[in-house]
Amino acid sequence: MCGTEKAALVNKCSLTSTAKENGSTRTTLSSDAVINLDQLTLLISLSHNGDPMMFESYWREMGDKCTFEIPGCQSLSYFANKNNLCWFLEPELEEEIKRLHRVVGNAAVEDHHVVVGTGSTQLIQAALYALSPPDESEPTSVVSATPYYSCYPEVTDFLRSGLYKWAGDARVFDKDGPYIEFVTSPSNPDGSIREAIVKKGQGKVVHDLAYYWPQYTPITCCAHFDVMLFTASKCTGHAGSRIGWALVKDKDVARKMTKFIEISTIGVSKEAQLRSAKIMGVISDSCLHPNSNNFFEYCQRLMAERWGKLKEVVGRSKIFTLPEYPPEYCLFTGEFSEAHPAFAWMKCNKNTEDFEKFLRAQKVLARSGRRFGSDPKFVRVSMLSREEEFEIFLHRLLSIQATSN
Amino acid sequence: MCGTEKAALVNKCSLTSTAKENGSTRTTLSSDAVINLDQLTLLISLSHNGDPMMFESYWREMGDKCTFEIPGCQSLSYFANKNNLCWFLEPELEEEIKRLHRVVGNAAVEDHHVVVGTGSTQLIQAALYALSPPDESEPTSVVSATPYYSCYPEVTDFLRSGLYKWAGDARVFDKDGPYIEFVTSPSNPDGSIREAIVKKGQGKVVHDLAYYWPQYTPITCCAHFDVMLFTASKCTGHAGSRIGWALVKDKDVARKMTKFIEISTIGVSKEAQLRSAKIMGVISDSCLHPNSNNFFEYCQRLMAERWGKLKEVVGRSKIFTLPEYPPEYCLFTGEFSEAHPAFAWMKCNKNTEDFEKFLRAQKVLARSGRRFGSDPKFVRVSMLSREEEFEIFLHRLLSIQATSN
Repeated sequence: MCGTEKAALVNKCSLTSTAKENGSTRTTLSSDAVINLDQLTLLISLSHNGDPMMFESYWREMGDKCTFEIPGCQSLSYFANKNNLCWFLEPELEEEIKRLHRVVGNAAVEDHHVVVGTGSTQLIQAALYALSPPDESEPTSVVSATPYYSCYPEVTDFLRSGLYKWAGDARVFDKDGPYIEFVTSPSNPDGSIREAIVKKGQGKVVHDLAYYWPQYTPITCCAHFDVMLFTASKCTGHAGSRIGWALVKDKDVARKMTKFIEISTIGVSKEAQLRSAKIMGVISDSCLHPNSNNFFEYCQRLMAERWGKLKEVVGRSKIFTLPEYPPEYCLFTGEFSEAHPAFAWMKCNKNTEDFEKFLRAQKVLARSGRRFGSDPKFVRVSMLSREEEFEIFLHRLLSIQATSN
Repeated sequence: MCGTEKAALVNKCSLTSTAKENGSTRTTLSSDAVINLDQLTLLISLSHNGDPMMFESYWREMGDKCTFEIPGCQSLSYFANKNNLCWFLEPELEEEIKRLHRVVGNAAVEDHHVVVGTGSTQLIQAALYALSPPDESEPTSVVSATPYYSCYPEVTDFLRSGLYKWAGDARVFDKDGPYIEFVTSPSNPDGSIREAIVKKGQGKVVHDLAYYWPQYTPITCCAHFDVMLFTASKCTGHAGSRIGWALVKDKDVARKMTKFIEISTIGVSKEAQLRSAKIMGVISDSCLHPNSNNFFEYCQRLMAERWGKLKEVVGRSKIFTLPEYPPEYCLFTGEFSEAHPAFAWMKCNKNTEDFEKFLRAQKVLARSGRRFGSDPKFVRVSMLSREEEFEIFLHRLLSIQATSN
């Protein structure tokens, strides 16, 4: 069954009613609904993500404070800042990105250029374009350590580029010559902190730090890499805005990444940039003012609750296991805490070859470990779904265990 | 001098002050400013466009009616409509796109799927991806008749795709096998109405109808092609939103174009889509209500005024010539009128090899005919710049003629 058929199935089975409420859509689930904890594999090849709907409640609580307004005569131009290397980057967004990183302390911004993209997915491609030597006879090898983010192979190869080519697991890569290594840290799918693996002379490393925010993981240091990718989807929860940004040390790399976005989409939506700037500003303010509803603390609490519940359910039997995350000191919260990743990387200890298929038969959609270059005994489950979906998921896991014990 | 250096030069020379006024940026020009009538070639490879700033006055006049507002808790999801083939297309935008085409009568929408893109530039690539047979040993040839839109070669080849490859002028294309032909009508750069040239069995045609709107050209028929591309930039003037759309007859082609956008940017900014829907709604309303300020009539008036002035200046000497546009009956206005293209395709009759270079020496930046696969005796000049820039351009042309006569 292809992804689109799956989507049709889920749409038929799981959504019994939808209604607009406070400008946002709520979905009610029937009790035998197919739960989709791999939101986006529904759609062929889609991906990483897990629709970050669980942060919606924060934004609803914040009310008018984060309403964005733009008059019809604003932002007609392609240009946002003709004096900037990234000429389509709104100055307000650049400022709020830098402020937020300074407030959180998760990445260095002082000696980096900011390049905005239509989500970090576009920036992944911009980085490939910018870091592939233009004069090689062979495409540059692109690698990442398993389990790797399941979109890298497809994003790298879908246009059969002569500039770069997916070369699989970084751990077994032994070719000479130029290569590009993606380091996703915390890892998607397994939440672990990662470092570059290959470490050869002609290599370039892209640090995909989409999940390096306090709600998911302790901020143990201020990241200071050559190319760092971030996305509003995972930071603020606004996946629909399609706003990502790269912090890029080298001016020529930043210029080439900008050129990629110039050729492929002539910049990035100004509305999305300006709204993201406003949303990020609200987050920074929430962290700085002692009596306000600190965004990251709020979201970390939600994540911790969900992980607590999942661990409890999983702990009741021997069928499933989850990774362990030792407590670490978080520079942002000033406390020791465990990671609460956006995904649960679950392993099935039953004698089943294909965990994803097994779960699907129980009406739970997750993404097979195979998609991450790993073992099909693993699946990746999104922890960011709506509350109701998550509760039904737990309920189903309990039933599976009750039958199997 | 490369595009970026050019940009630096222009930034230094031409912009003496910038200020926010009513939410939009105004630029004051010094009298010896380098006028940029090729807005986007400033930036290496950028291009086609000509920043459509001249429509800003309409939107300023419309005031609050077109202010767009979105609460912080809206549009967090990647999804806009799980039941639609193009799952990230906002239903409101789909509706307003269809309504506007029905109001204007420029394109058939009843039996077409709407695919939204990050500007029509992304849709050009989506069309290449969708229309290239996946199993060919050779990349599919991509052609367009000269003078062709100057971005096609770069957009086609920048990633050295194994799926498709730029093959130049459609008029001399004689290879067998699959090909894709871009038909830009009205033509960018020369404003003429175009038809497919190659007409062989295995060919696919993409109609790029970015300028097929009443302000630029008489609407002589309701276009009904397999793949038609449009963009908000040229229709409403909101280039900064990066909203384009394709009307696609074949379901599988629409699905593959959607897949391209899914892999490359996981959809299109929801803010930009919802704002575009609002703006388009205001335009449709303005056409339907007899006492309102009809958008297309307003913009057509502006274009006609500029063309009148340019023709007068050019007519005073024998140095330059412009194409002729015979009056045709416009189904939208119900009147006979000439075309008033977004670009002037000027020819220099002086004994100069390189018209672009000649103009640059007179502090006018235009794009050389060479970039359009044509003669360097031609340049393309944007007719959509801000009033002040356009007036200085006319003034400079007059001085050149005065010196040369």
